[in-house]
Amino acid sequence: MNEFELIDSIVAALGDTVRDENCLVGPGDDSAAVRCEPGAVLVSSIDALVADVHFPTDAAAELIGYRALMVALSDLAAMGADASHVLVSLTLDQVDVAWVRALAEGMREAAVSAGVFIAGGNVSRGPLAIHVSAHGFADALRLMKRDGAKPGDSVYVTGQLGGAAAALQRGRLAPSDDLDELNSAYFRPSARLLEGRALRDVASSAMDVSDGLLQDAAHLADASGVRIELESVRIPIVTGATLQHALTGGDDYELLFTSHAEIPDLAVGVSRIGRVSEGHGVWLDGSPVEAAGYQHFL
Amino acid sequence: MNEFELIDSIVAALGDTVRDENCLVGPGDDSAAVRCEPGAVLVSSIDALVADVHFPTDAAAELIGYRALMVALSDLAAMGADASHVLVSLTLDQVDVAWVRALAEGMREAAVSAGVFIAGGNVSRGPLAIHVSAHGFADALRLMKRDGAKPGDSVYVTGQLGGAAAALQRGRLAPSDDLDELNSAYFRPSARLLEGRALRDVASSAMDVSDGLLQDAAHLADASGVRIELESVRIPIVTGATLQHALTGGDDYELLFTSHAEIPDLAVGVSRIGRVSEGHGVWLDGSPVEAAGYQHFL
Repeated sequence: MNEFELIDSIVAALGDTVRDENCLVGPGDDSAAVRCEPGAVLVSSIDALVADVHFPTDAAAELIGYRALMVALSDLAAMGADASHVLVSLTLDQVDVAWVRALAEGMREAAVSAGVFIAGGNVSRGPLAIHVSAHGFADALRLMKRDGAKPGDSVYVTGQLGGAAAALQRGRLAPSDDLDELNSAYFRPSARLLEGRALRDVASSAMDVSDGLLQDAAHLADASGVRIELESVRIPIVTGATLQHALTGGDDYELLFTSHAEIPDLAVGVSRIGRVSEGHGVWLDGSPVEAAGYQHFL
Repeated sequence: MNEFELIDSIVAALGDTVRDENCLVGPGDDSAAVRCEPGAVLVSSIDALVADVHFPTDAAAELIGYRALMVALSDLAAMGADASHVLVSLTLDQVDVAWVRALAEGMREAAVSAGVFIAGGNVSRGPLAIHVSAHGFADALRLMKRDGAKPGDSVYVTGQLGGAAAALQRGRLAPSDDLDELNSAYFRPSARLLEGRALRDVASSAMDVSDGLLQDAAHLADASGVRIELESVRIPIVTGATLQHALTGGDDYELLFTSHAEIPDLAVGVSRIGRVSEGHGVWLDGSPVEAAGYQHFL
């Protein structure tokens, strides 16, 4: 099988998710062409999942594909963007067609779930890795950035934290589809796109929790020039995970945001976990904390 | 040095190329936000350069960075798009700050040369690889696609072919900045953005030559449902390269296009290398040829 037959096989597995009424040119040409939302700004992010760094190589390919797309889309959710499409750059150290098709099926499932299409990609030889660039549109005035938190705002997080970290620490990452709650948290995160859109008119700042709550809160505090004060008893924790997982674990892909307005009800739940004050850094239960979380290059 | 200090160092090396009047949010937030050209379609592509597959690891980091951006931008040139910006996803197996800064400086140089900005990126641990998604805007009606070649059109190529393949075969890929013509062809390709824009009103189809002229011509013939007949004596060859390099070598990043109109003068030169006829496949000097070129998974 050559590169082009492999691409045909991937495109076949992606099914309808390579098509969209706004897509003028999809997979198969030099570039994709997508109609822009009139008056909108383009919101774009790029992310990588590398074998044995960001996922266990023996996990089910569907789960790896699903996770790769959701992780990339989470960055659009954090901006409050309307997600539109993704491009996928895949490097493979061997060609196992069944595996690659399963990977594509996982991507298809994530694309359907998130309401995006897969506009194009690239396949080449190299150590197994999946890089995804995710694209959406937003009103320039309604972008949720990291730098808008103000003293007096409350601090919130969507959903529950710590599940993915607890799954990683437990060390039994599922090679199959039969996932318990912790493995689901790791392998099947949901990009909080719906929530991002619901929050973009009320949040003063936002980001996704990917490297651990304390570290990510420190980035938000830094970008906004404020102090973030968290209360540990208010932090929502996945059953089976600990406070430590929630504080420093990472891979949650929930939204951390600040607001001084009333927060709309969200199906995934929203917890008020602290407040913004004058100063800098992150405080937990009244004391400053050293930000600790996932460090890619410790 | 942690991940965030490394990113700061990269952003510093990128200098002014992370800023643009159309860039509302640049590096440092969850996503980049870029103002869309009114009425335009978004043209996007993604490409990967993997160490020891797409470049020699001991090459100068500036050259690797330069090449990574240009290769990705070449796909926009092939569509006739106005290139706008790129996102870069970098995986590093070790942190050599001087090396990474040099890589970023090469990217900066390519970005300045191509007139694009670097809107954001991602750095994580993994085998050395650089994935770049490139984005631009175009008029929907002026997109150069692969499927528009018509019998009676002439076939053209910009510039000269074979130089990169000759450099690869010679096996002395420069670890330094002192490049001869062949190494320049390999390490410092120019995305033909200016040429793509000049050709978009006259070309009936186009693509970039990345996998070798014969193989790429076969894709164009396939997409358009036509035969492409090439004449070997008309194929422009870099000094020091052979016809075989030009036909099957790849890595040229020149534009292959078809047209029945008058072709504007281009500084890099344009050669008429054949014609489009009814049928299928690629013919060379009156005989059908088996498409041969770079196969990522032979």
